[in-house]
Amino acid sequence: MGSGTIRRPVSGRMPHKIKLISLDWGTTSLRSYLIGTSGNILAAREGPYGILQVNNRDFAAALRQIAGDWLKAYANVPILASGMIGARQGWNEVPYAVVPSGLTDLHPVRFDGFEQILYIIPGLVYHGPAGVPDIMRGEETQVLGFGTNGIFLLPGSHSKWVHVQDNKIIWFATFMTGELFAVLKDHSILGRMMNGTKSDGDAFSQGVSRGTQTKSSLQALFSARTLALLGDLQESSVADYLSGLLIGAEISEARNIIDSPNTNITIVGGQTLSHIYEKALTICGLPSLVAAKDAAARGHWHIALASGLVAS
Amino acid sequence: MGSGTIRRPVSGRMPHKIKLISLDWGTTSLRSYLIGTSGNILAAREGPYGILQVNNRDFAAALRQIAGDWLKAYANVPILASGMIGARQGWNEVPYAVVPSGLTDLHPVRFDGFEQILYIIPGLVYHGPAGVPDIMRGEETQVLGFGTNGIFLLPGSHSKWVHVQDNKIIWFATFMTGELFAVLKDHSILGRMMNGTKSDGDAFSQGVSRGTQTKSSLQALFSARTLALLGDLQESSVADYLSGLLIGAEISEARNIIDSPNTNITIVGGQTLSHIYEKALTICGLPSLVAAKDAAARGHWHIALASGLVAS
Repeated sequence: MGSGTIRRPVSGRMPHKIKLISLDWGTTSLRSYLIGTSGNILAAREGPYGILQVNNRDFAAALRQIAGDWLKAYANVPILASGMIGARQGWNEVPYAVVPSGLTDLHPVRFDGFEQILYIIPGLVYHGPAGVPDIMRGEETQVLGFGTNGIFLLPGSHSKWVHVQDNKIIWFATFMTGELFAVLKDHSILGRMMNGTKSDGDAFSQGVSRGTQTKSSLQALFSARTLALLGDLQESSVADYLSGLLIGAEISEARNIIDSPNTNITIVGGQTLSHIYEKALTICGLPSLVAAKDAAARGHWHIALASGLVAS
Repeated sequence: MGSGTIRRPVSGRMPHKIKLISLDWGTTSLRSYLIGTSGNILAAREGPYGILQVNNRDFAAALRQIAGDWLKAYANVPILASGMIGARQGWNEVPYAVVPSGLTDLHPVRFDGFEQILYIIPGLVYHGPAGVPDIMRGEETQVLGFGTNGIFLLPGSHSKWVHVQDNKIIWFATFMTGELFAVLKDHSILGRMMNGTKSDGDAFSQGVSRGTQTKSSLQALFSARTLALLGDLQESSVADYLSGLLIGAEISEARNIIDSPNTNITIVGGQTLSHIYEKALTICGLPSLVAAKDAAARGHWHIALASGLVAS
């Protein structure tokens, strides 16, 4: 097992109860799950084997590292994967399903390039009204594992906002908020203002308000510099202000696109980022709730059932 | 004279006619001018002595390098500088004048830290309606040297849009468009799509249209990736598309803020960038004209007259 892997052990010995081995295989990490007869998660592991981290693109070795013992012990149990593993830069490219799509539209694609048969869930493509496509891989599984209706927000380097209606994803949009923050912090003049960054909730709130209120997201960026230069913002608070500004602008833009603005928002993601977005949404007066973890494994289970990979 | 310095020689010998030595001293370059009795530019030089390029912050040495012979030959002629040289990171910080401001409000500040007396023109601060300040150093001089009314656009790493009414700057806004393009190109996932960039006017136009039409500037960024991934945009055209997208969004946001949207736009800047923005404005159906060069020297002359530094 490689360094950095987090395990949650199988509770007791229950080999006969394993129905599915599932993989949430993204850009930066790989999560694997042992799933029981009723869709319950019996064990979970996480390792730094995202598709961009795997040495020499040896995905088979990475899979064996994180779950080699499971694969041996439950050799007849189907393996189902979602995420960037099905992208062009992944192990095996699988086509996108088209929005609107629900659980029954996401037909896992069989992949024979490993010593055991693997099924990969397609990503989703959305052809927006303006002719600009948007895409996702992995988030569709998390969202559909969770909800049958509502707005889902999956924060990250590339935040996704997803609208589910009557069990189908009918719209989604991607915001490069996390990555934009990182490149501005590490490589732009705004980063040079960030001296000795310390957490500042007020600066974050101020940024969120500004980002939400402005109709000029691009122009607003420069305020992170001017406020600090003129002494209205401490340099140690510029990072929090900029983070709030970008998240506020994201929320504002997303809400402008979404048809039904009063739908509840469910946040699906890691604890830290979920908490940050929850705080930002509260500042905007928007109620939200944070989803239980392991959304991907729930989606794997439902898609395995819907596709007949696992008998109900 | 350092490498990279461009000289336009004095035409003939006319020492008695020199009334002003002026410096347009920005972040990346230093331009110096010899100005005659009627404000005519008798000689111009440009060198890579921007305030962030000067070794050990030895601004005196840089000034001697570019104009040491002028300073000796015309020792009694006033020296007037504008730009980032008056910033905190510059040679001598001078305060900002406040919008609205015209030529007569920009009182040059005397600086005694050099072997000859130097005057530095203040920058401008604008306190916007939402309580967010914006700032400039140098552009105020270029714009006021030029126009008494209208919208002025100064493209660059940090584009400035400036509204002049009745000889005074009444509003301006900064867009980090050039820097944003650079950091996204060099450090984000969008840059990784840019293989073998070649000029593509159609992709640029497509980007401008998208950037102008969208109300979701941040969300639109990701389209540079999805269009290329799905084969709707060649990877060699992603850079031009993104450039158009950002410039289109800038134009759209600026037009939304400006009170009088039908005012003509004058572009003040280097030839290449001016041409790119002129093209983008044309795509948006907005007439523009490109200003004659050496706008800064014209501003220096008018401010020298207005402040009594030079007798009219």
